[in-house]
Amino acid sequence: MSLDPESLARKVRAGDRAALARAITLAESTKPEHRDAAQALLTALSDKAGAAKRIGITGPPGVGKSTFIEALGERLTTQGRKVAVLAIDPSSSRTHGSILGDKTRMAKLSANRRAFIRPSPSSGALGGAGRKTREAILICEGAGFDIVIVETMGVGQSETLAADMTDTFLALMLPGAGDELQGVKKGLIEIADILVVNKADGENAPRARRAARDLKNAVHILEGGERLWQTPVLTCSAATGDGVEAVWETVEKHQDTMRKAGRFEARRRGQRLGWLRAMVEERVLAELHENPAVQARFSALEDDVASAATPAGAAAEDVLAVWRRER
Amino acid sequence: MSLDPESLARKVRAGDRAALARAITLAESTKPEHRDAAQALLTALSDKAGAAKRIGITGPPGVGKSTFIEALGERLTTQGRKVAVLAIDPSSSRTHGSILGDKTRMAKLSANRRAFIRPSPSSGALGGAGRKTREAILICEGAGFDIVIVETMGVGQSETLAADMTDTFLALMLPGAGDELQGVKKGLIEIADILVVNKADGENAPRARRAARDLKNAVHILEGGERLWQTPVLTCSAATGDGVEAVWETVEKHQDTMRKAGRFEARRRGQRLGWLRAMVEERVLAELHENPAVQARFSALEDDVASAATPAGAAAEDVLAVWRRER
Repeated sequence: MSLDPESLARKVRAGDRAALARAITLAESTKPEHRDAAQALLTALSDKAGAAKRIGITGPPGVGKSTFIEALGERLTTQGRKVAVLAIDPSSSRTHGSILGDKTRMAKLSANRRAFIRPSPSSGALGGAGRKTREAILICEGAGFDIVIVETMGVGQSETLAADMTDTFLALMLPGAGDELQGVKKGLIEIADILVVNKADGENAPRARRAARDLKNAVHILEGGERLWQTPVLTCSAATGDGVEAVWETVEKHQDTMRKAGRFEARRRGQRLGWLRAMVEERVLAELHENPAVQARFSALEDDVASAATPAGAAAEDVLAVWRRER
Repeated sequence: MSLDPESLARKVRAGDRAALARAITLAESTKPEHRDAAQALLTALSDKAGAAKRIGITGPPGVGKSTFIEALGERLTTQGRKVAVLAIDPSSSRTHGSILGDKTRMAKLSANRRAFIRPSPSSGALGGAGRKTREAILICEGAGFDIVIVETMGVGQSETLAADMTDTFLALMLPGAGDELQGVKKGLIEIADILVVNKADGENAPRARRAARDLKNAVHILEGGERLWQTPVLTCSAATGDGVEAVWETVEKHQDTMRKAGRFEARRRGQRLGWLRAMVEERVLAELHENPAVQARFSALEDDVASAATPAGAAAEDVLAVWRRER
């Protein structure tokens, strides 16, 4: 891969798709020798940093995330906007994408020249999910995309990560009500700016409406009445397209509301600080594991810890003593 | 809270439920002054470490995890076994449990004197999901529980964590087929030892059977034919109890098969080493953030990073330089 960051940045700015993909791959690289080039690339594109509306989208498997993003992306590109879609992988060294693979995902949007779909990052990166998605957002902004969608699955770490790098975080929900709502984590409602019950079509429509009503009640209880932004609950059908436009209008309304109150920029400020912290932590851990004395002590303890002859807690103290001596 | 670890350990061994809860709270504590006591407690209980069958259970919201665990727990306790249920929280500093709260979960099993249900750990712990679930498992084993169930929601980090601290990892799935299977991550099939389609009752029964068939095909494609343990796909109804017994028999069969092949112990060995590594990393990061010079540099850079005047990457290099000087 060409590592001249200046020339790569020029091509990215000029709308070269292959260069865009290459730039993200460079930023995702875990190789130390790519680190400076990636940093230089981001610096070369930094005047465009923050230019896009950043939207996070989450939802459980089967909720129709790809269909929704495709429906939304088609609408936005028809209006002349450029839309990039990035995915945060569910962060497992053993997770390698969905069964049918990313290539078949969003086939129509993939072929749209105003859209750019980035498959999930390769697995096994230190630090797990979304480690380099922030860099990918900045690169897409450098390439002139107006809207960057960060897609994540399920609950947990990757959802928080996606919320922490976007301006508006949208949670797609399945139709269902009553008992099933127990499964909706309070935390998801807390981090979501907009809740959308998808699949509100055909025989599911009444269930979707019931789910939306139950969710509204839950939101009301959790949020109370006095808030700048009361999390709205919408229904839509990504399959038929019904309600997708209204979801986008709500996204715009959310960003306008937050912007007017100074909260849009406040959120981005907080995100930049969180990113700094994450980068520092990642590098410190890399240095720990690359330290030869630490490696040697880990190796020496391995057998006894594995067999439970030495409790892991005691062995951890031992390794830490070596690390402290080394520093 | 009483911090005498010896006396706490004695009470835990004697079956004192309040002491058990207190011991887990001590282990979960992030306060440095509780660290030694927690370590001493684990050492005092270490002869019982590993005594239980450790079962991980995951599944998306709405799949009926609580109902399933309750149905399984009732059966096992009726057979005279002691069952502990621990939960891995989906690791967000803003996630505080399910809407209806943990107290109302598994009401029947909670009242069973052969069962112990531990609510999700409190949020905000450094390192996130499941940071102290390993300790909680060891404490439950010290208290004489034969079976420890570690429950997790959704995909991602917390799922991998749960698989990494249990002997058998079971994924509950919703009935559904075709397109919806796209949402089933290859990684989940890779880490699950048993797949169970729940809600195979009433009008859902045919869909559940179809889903099981599709999953079997997917497993066959992903795993190939030559394996010690071919991930089985079962159907059950936690609500009616149908098939729950067969799921447990499959868990037993999995553990027997792995044990005979030496893979049961190999898995536990690997888990102990992973735990050591996680503990060391957590402490190193705590030292980073407790270092006054590092704190001072973070503070000095804060404004410029927040306003994007200094790119986060450059600021990270700056903090790291301070940290390296300090060590």
